[in-house]
Amino acid sequence: MLRSREGWHWTPTTGLQAGIPSIAVIEPSQMIQNPRAVLDVIVIGAGYTGLTAARDTSTSGLKTLILEGRDRLGGRTWSSEIDGYPYEMGGTWVHWFQPHVYRELSRYGMKDELVHSTDYSKKHNFFTFKTTDGLRNMSHEEEDSLFGRAIEKFVNVDGNLGRSVMPFPFNAYWNKDVFKYANLSVADRIAQINHDLSSDERHAVEAFVLLCSGGTTENSSFLDFLRWWAAANYDYKTLLDTIIVFKLKCGQSSFAKRFFEESLASGNLSFSFNTPVTRIDSSKGLVEVWTRDGQHFSAKRVICTSPLNVLGEIEFNPPLEQAKHEAAALKHVNQCVKVHADIKDPEMRSWSGVTYPQNKLVIGVADGMTPTGKTHCVFFGCDANHMHADEDINQTLRAIKEFGPMEIDRVVFHNWSKDEFARGAWVWYRPGMEVRYLEALRKRQGPILFANSDWAAGGWRSFIDGAIQSGTEAASTVRQELLPV
Amino acid sequence: MLRSREGWHWTPTTGLQAGIPSIAVIEPSQMIQNPRAVLDVIVIGAGYTGLTAARDTSTSGLKTLILEGRDRLGGRTWSSEIDGYPYEMGGTWVHWFQPHVYRELSRYGMKDELVHSTDYSKKHNFFTFKTTDGLRNMSHEEEDSLFGRAIEKFVNVDGNLGRSVMPFPFNAYWNKDVFKYANLSVADRIAQINHDLSSDERHAVEAFVLLCSGGTTENSSFLDFLRWWAAANYDYKTLLDTIIVFKLKCGQSSFAKRFFEESLASGNLSFSFNTPVTRIDSSKGLVEVWTRDGQHFSAKRVICTSPLNVLGEIEFNPPLEQAKHEAAALKHVNQCVKVHADIKDPEMRSWSGVTYPQNKLVIGVADGMTPTGKTHCVFFGCDANHMHADEDINQTLRAIKEFGPMEIDRVVFHNWSKDEFARGAWVWYRPGMEVRYLEALRKRQGPILFANSDWAAGGWRSFIDGAIQSGTEAASTVRQELLPV
Repeated sequence: MLRSREGWHWTPTTGLQAGIPSIAVIEPSQMIQNPRAVLDVIVIGAGYTGLTAARDTSTSGLKTLILEGRDRLGGRTWSSEIDGYPYEMGGTWVHWFQPHVYRELSRYGMKDELVHSTDYSKKHNFFTFKTTDGLRNMSHEEEDSLFGRAIEKFVNVDGNLGRSVMPFPFNAYWNKDVFKYANLSVADRIAQINHDLSSDERHAVEAFVLLCSGGTTENSSFLDFLRWWAAANYDYKTLLDTIIVFKLKCGQSSFAKRFFEESLASGNLSFSFNTPVTRIDSSKGLVEVWTRDGQHFSAKRVICTSPLNVLGEIEFNPPLEQAKHEAAALKHVNQCVKVHADIKDPEMRSWSGVTYPQNKLVIGVADGMTPTGKTHCVFFGCDANHMHADEDINQTLRAIKEFGPMEIDRVVFHNWSKDEFARGAWVWYRPGMEVRYLEALRKRQGPILFANSDWAAGGWRSFIDGAIQSGTEAASTVRQELLPV
Repeated sequence: MLRSREGWHWTPTTGLQAGIPSIAVIEPSQMIQNPRAVLDVIVIGAGYTGLTAARDTSTSGLKTLILEGRDRLGGRTWSSEIDGYPYEMGGTWVHWFQPHVYRELSRYGMKDELVHSTDYSKKHNFFTFKTTDGLRNMSHEEEDSLFGRAIEKFVNVDGNLGRSVMPFPFNAYWNKDVFKYANLSVADRIAQINHDLSSDERHAVEAFVLLCSGGTTENSSFLDFLRWWAAANYDYKTLLDTIIVFKLKCGQSSFAKRFFEESLASGNLSFSFNTPVTRIDSSKGLVEVWTRDGQHFSAKRVICTSPLNVLGEIEFNPPLEQAKHEAAALKHVNQCVKVHADIKDPEMRSWSGVTYPQNKLVIGVADGMTPTGKTHCVFFGCDANHMHADEDINQTLRAIKEFGPMEIDRVVFHNWSKDEFARGAWVWYRPGMEVRYLEALRKRQGPILFANSDWAAGGWRSFIDGAIQSGTEAASTVRQELLPV
């Protein structure tokens, strides 16, 4: 299998090494049908947004070029298969309540690839809760009861668990009352309900919301959480089911590859990996795109899928509209740290835990069983008490062992904070940013469309679902404009 | 607006009249680009399955012909706009947990067309429960509590509300334990739990399940209900939300028309309405299709979307495979009677009721407010105590008034039982039919693909969602086979 230069891999014998194998790496990395020709569409970025957009344009007959800075498909979602087991470096979990991603899984005949991350049939069937109040183990029923109770208090701004204030998850602003919460941070909301929270409940809700936001309680918007909650039908169990329970047995990159292969089969797709875009000029009739290595392409339309936190690094002429420029400069807050570890004891398969706020990793969950019978666990940290997992591997190992004694056989991760094409993980806005910038981020500038899960208009913004939605919409617009009627 | 010959309309002054207006009626009814040419695909039927399939094939460059027996789009889902208000004659409610239909609503920018059927802000804010035990009015909270409790008993075959026995709604047979229930009828299941049901609970669960199945408790499969329950996340409130709460402000036919218009814009679509297909011959290389009026077309592939209950009326050569033939002869059981009534009192907007088992209509719910301030209610009956609403309009009016005193200003309905292109409503299998015939119904016969919500492979078989899924899959197969690689 080809290796990506991205990602990190550690074992006790090899130590830390850069680069991991992935079927998402495409070789040859460039195939351009006619470099001089004017294209119908240039899609910048081969994450799910770009892959969906390029598939929809290429299969409807439009000459399409994907330019991607990385050596691989998938953007913030990709899997590395190591010794026969897929490790998800970014986006992982999906659910049939996420309409756009599920429609594609269904269309590609991949529904039966869905498997449970949870398995409560093994011996260490408990939840470790380690806070400033000490360490306790509890049953998963007690865990769900504690977290469910705490989160219900957190979201219950209307006495109706948020249903009244946000009745449509895909249109968060349907009830204008929601604007009352526009500038509320997670910390602000916790302050409002602090009198009603036990110490356990406060630790639980903070740890859970930080798992979702990847930020700090001060810089994370409350509204983004309320939308996730609404999208998950205002129910803690459904929230878990939709964000952290169902993953693809074959790995996300197998799914991403289906989009790419369908595009290729159309005969209308050109692509170039390892090709970051530096400049986009739409001041004349066509859009001209320059790459870091000096290539130059032109097209009738560009679908730019750069994430918010790196959008400002492309030079636009005419420049980005003021609101887009401001939002890109502010950036979203998600600096999630995601670390996989293979644990020797197979009985750990039924375990999960929280260590908060003292640890560099906040949440750990058993996620699978490797072919050699190890428990695969995944750990999450955030911008509060942030670490770069690659800079001091011993610190990373210590942060894992803070959850309890365990023998670590392998560690795999991607440092999304240092990633030059992402500078963070899935989107989570600062208080006030949604209301101030979302509309502006969605707006096109002439022949340039901006598509990304970071500003997707559905209930699952920041999820794979939002990416596919956003790519679908951009392609639909371009097709309507360019295809003969 | 054009009028369909389908549907019935009654007012106190006009009496009962056949035919109602609909934007789903297409004029001119035929547009065939080149009658002699061999087509890529003939799609039989312009319901959501056929519309989706034809859109996906035509927009990817395949020459596509739709043949439709009716004078309109939409099959078992269509709306009639009368005096500025859309009455849904068949399929009505959708939800963002239904991935295929929601993906299309999202793609066509129609998400904000979703409105609540329920409105509990008016004066007559109660539920009428009229059984052999007499009549009581109760609050909607009491209603939900009674129905939720009764239905939980009904589905709780595993002590886990069905979650253990059917963990994946889109793959009902994932846990082989489910086969234990393969031959169970609704009546059988009620007999199993009868000792635990109060008289109220038994009336509630029977009325609710008959609303879903449109059959009788004896001929309706238990498994079909368990799948609806699983698809709705094993929760009564979510089941209501997904099957009877959210509808399109603009009417379903506005949505169906978007598929048709997108196909037309491709330049690859031909169509002929009022053109029932009588014979399909795939014994030679191409597929040949004959119509009732003697036209003849040929194509590389046929996507036949005839519903189960009329599939047997087309002559196939070679004949339908034995299992398909048997299933089509057995037919599914749904003989739902759906009747709209405008009620003079606007305060009825918050009302709902059940009259069971003594009445020809089982359930009634307020569903909207007409522009002239009448309460629009919708009533459902089933094959138990069945009536043909058009045969004796006074019987129909009496069945409505059985729910309570009300002044009826208008009645609108479609008699699906007599409909020659449907012979029933959404699919509901007899006990044992699913396990015996579903796989066979999905199978192609050479160049003929069979696509319909009646045997869709997802969690929402029998819904609009299943139709769109089925059409998507059929088109995807045809595209892979016919498009150059």
